[in-house]
Amino acid sequence: MPPTSEILTAERILEATEEVLRRHGPAKATVVDVARALGVSHGSVYRHFRTKAALREAVTKRWLDRTSESLAGIAADASRDPRQRLGDWLAALFEAKRRKAGDDPELFATYMVLTDENGGAVAEHITDLTGQLTRIVRAGVDAGVFTAADPAATARALFQATGRFHDPGYHREWELPGVEDEFDAVVGLLLRGLGV
Amino acid sequence: MPPTSEILTAERILEATEEVLRRHGPAKATVVDVARALGVSHGSVYRHFRTKAALREAVTKRWLDRTSESLAGIAADASRDPRQRLGDWLAALFEAKRRKAGDDPELFATYMVLTDENGGAVAEHITDLTGQLTRIVRAGVDAGVFTAADPAATARALFQATGRFHDPGYHREWELPGVEDEFDAVVGLLLRGLGV
Repeated sequence: MPPTSEILTAERILEATEEVLRRHGPAKATVVDVARALGVSHGSVYRHFRTKAALREAVTKRWLDRTSESLAGIAADASRDPRQRLGDWLAALFEAKRRKAGDDPELFATYMVLTDENGGAVAEHITDLTGQLTRIVRAGVDAGVFTAADPAATARALFQATGRFHDPGYHREWELPGVEDEFDAVVGLLLRGLGV
Repeated sequence: MPPTSEILTAERILEATEEVLRRHGPAKATVVDVARALGVSHGSVYRHFRTKAALREAVTKRWLDRTSESLAGIAADASRDPRQRLGDWLAALFEAKRRKAGDDPELFATYMVLTDENGGAVAEHITDLTGQLTRIVRAGVDAGVFTAADPAATARALFQATGRFHDPGYHREWELPGVEDEFDAVVGLLLRGLGV
């Protein structure tokens, strides 16, 4: 039996795929490159991901999930009052996206291509995030601090109104001076709008 | 003396330029094409616009100005109360952009390329629009119906929070079902947030 570190898991394949994408770029990366990086046959990779498209979708989903998982804790944190929770969640989303764009611009550009190709994974990601927001809005309504007849619709409005601070299409704006004041002004207006 | 209709004005050149751009696309359109469409020498065109870049910038500015001019009347209309004026102005901006994108998709795509090239003209356009918004916010503060310590900052926040409904990057979303409800939800939240 091979040592645990050498068992070919889906996760190990996805890690290697990200590395191959980073190195070769999204246009050139192939399943053969991934297999070579892992020292396995490409058939072994195909046993986990039936097509190259499925592999690309899975690696996109994994990248998006990293953001939503880091936010889920805030959405569920009943120790913060809902206004604080909403402000913190939106700030954490902005910060997570900004870090992804700023810390590793090449990988970010790669994932911009992959998210363009994988509309389904992106839609799922947005559903996930607005679901977390809905949970916070509902907590605020229950606590009597937010007014929202339809918390899911309000959550979508909050997500859309803050798009400038999480939609990757705006990533160039995130490094400009004053962007944090702009974020605070938008979130401040929205929080006031939500108040009872 | 030639009849008035044949005097070569900057406006006639810009009209012809738009038509040439529509026909040839932004990559291929040349000053010679514009001169040919007008039946004049390219030297005559250069007497009005010193370079091809200047001509492209001017035609971009003209396209953007058409939107802001159509909104200026609403911003200045003291007969509407400021809340109504703000809602109407945002709806008119959304409608104007949506019409540009939907009625003539090829010309819209052309202008997406041109606005990418002419960041200065776009920045001026945004300054113009947020200036109109500032005027409405100030009118609301003066009338005692809006709270805004810094009307210009609030205007920028309103503009950014509604980006999904006027930023051309989102034009594909404007045809989806439900987009009007989404617009209403965002604007409703913002209007409540502005209230005293």
